[in-house]
Amino acid sequence: MQRYFVAKEQMGDQEVKITGEDVKHISRVMRMNIGDQIICSDNDSRTVSCRISSMMDQEIIADIIESLAPNTELPVEVTIAQGLPKGDKLDLIIQKGTELGAHTFIPYSASRSVVKWDHKKAGKKVERLEKIAKEAAEQSYRERIPVVLTVQTLAELKKQMSQYDSVILAYEESAKEGEKSQFASALSELKVGQKIMIIVGPEGGLTDEEVRQLCSEGAVASGFGPRILRTETAALYALSAISYHFELMR
Amino acid sequence: MQRYFVAKEQMGDQEVKITGEDVKHISRVMRMNIGDQIICSDNDSRTVSCRISSMMDQEIIADIIESLAPNTELPVEVTIAQGLPKGDKLDLIIQKGTELGAHTFIPYSASRSVVKWDHKKAGKKVERLEKIAKEAAEQSYRERIPVVLTVQTLAELKKQMSQYDSVILAYEESAKEGEKSQFASALSELKVGQKIMIIVGPEGGLTDEEVRQLCSEGAVASGFGPRILRTETAALYALSAISYHFELMR
Repeated sequence: MQRYFVAKEQMGDQEVKITGEDVKHISRVMRMNIGDQIICSDNDSRTVSCRISSMMDQEIIADIIESLAPNTELPVEVTIAQGLPKGDKLDLIIQKGTELGAHTFIPYSASRSVVKWDHKKAGKKVERLEKIAKEAAEQSYRERIPVVLTVQTLAELKKQMSQYDSVILAYEESAKEGEKSQFASALSELKVGQKIMIIVGPEGGLTDEEVRQLCSEGAVASGFGPRILRTETAALYALSAISYHFELMR
Repeated sequence: MQRYFVAKEQMGDQEVKITGEDVKHISRVMRMNIGDQIICSDNDSRTVSCRISSMMDQEIIADIIESLAPNTELPVEVTIAQGLPKGDKLDLIIQKGTELGAHTFIPYSASRSVVKWDHKKAGKKVERLEKIAKEAAEQSYRERIPVVLTVQTLAELKKQMSQYDSVILAYEESAKEGEKSQFASALSELKVGQKIMIIVGPEGGLTDEEVRQLCSEGAVASGFGPRILRTETAALYALSAISYHFELMR
């Protein structure tokens, strides 16, 4: 069934009021009519199935049939801190990362980031990325749209690390320590409801100095297997592995 | 160090002969000179580091310095059977799937595949996909270029399933059975060196009849977490989870 996110104030006890672009999507793209059912989520804790009862040009009303128990969110909160990559790679990371359950995306500017975000245009860029996240969240049946923060410096990123229970830095390890990789060990210690940050470098990777700085703040460097992954693949690997660990293995 | 795949006959005991497009890449793109080092792999079991000793327009000779132990291949052979998707999604699946360690790709035509491969053009399409696989294998330091087969029917795909130790069908399970998902159980039983096939439907999924047919031949339907993944994301999830299971957890 088609899913839509609405603001909290649009979801009442008895009915949901749909406005904006979703009105067009329901009436013109999906060609739905009165009586058709949809699912609405308030992007927090409430997801309901409902039936369209009124359609106007700017507003659609749907009567709530029942509340649905949320169960499509990852059991741990995953933040992807992504070194600004080239071209439209950030779009891909946010679309696929949303499907795979990410909670927050933090783009940051690394020494080897070729792309720079003009401060004037940053607002528009974030808006565009938020739209990609919203659409991917609807398509993948998420209950929550991931948060996309504006671009940060490495210093700003470092300050936030203390809020996390675990911080993993994607890094081509020269050798594994012990039986498991650092990443698998970190996941074994992480508990349901806790927060993990995955830091990925831009194309060309982080500099030794950046790695040293992040690790001195508590980030743990870990490889994601022996192959060299492109920057946009690393985040997707981490999210898939976290889902496998927390959702499929138990 | 830059990596190149060469045919078996191009790799001698003492030297490697590089021909074709790689000559241009070494001389014009990388601007290398005599004395520079590269790594060459024969796409089977031999990977060597070598030093360029002669550069001509059509041929570069590099003297072998030493053999390198191969260690970037997944410990199990993974075949991705992908229902033909729309647009350039197959390119993405092959590029990212190669980075993540896939051994073979089998595109197949499913009931809901919108795209059809014209038999006359199939050869060219496979050639293009093979080129994507070769480039991604070089970039990710693979020792082996994945095999890309030409498009198959579901009947042809079914015939090949008996060659595999495990066949997983990506499917939105209504409920998990027991403690682990079917996919995690299958990976627990799979041994190093064995072969696993992951079957992914096209956009819109496989029909109930297709699922029934594949399962009656031994495929095990398994979900990849509670979120609905796009077709191009499912294969990448499976490969990441397999790497995590076999390369990071042990």
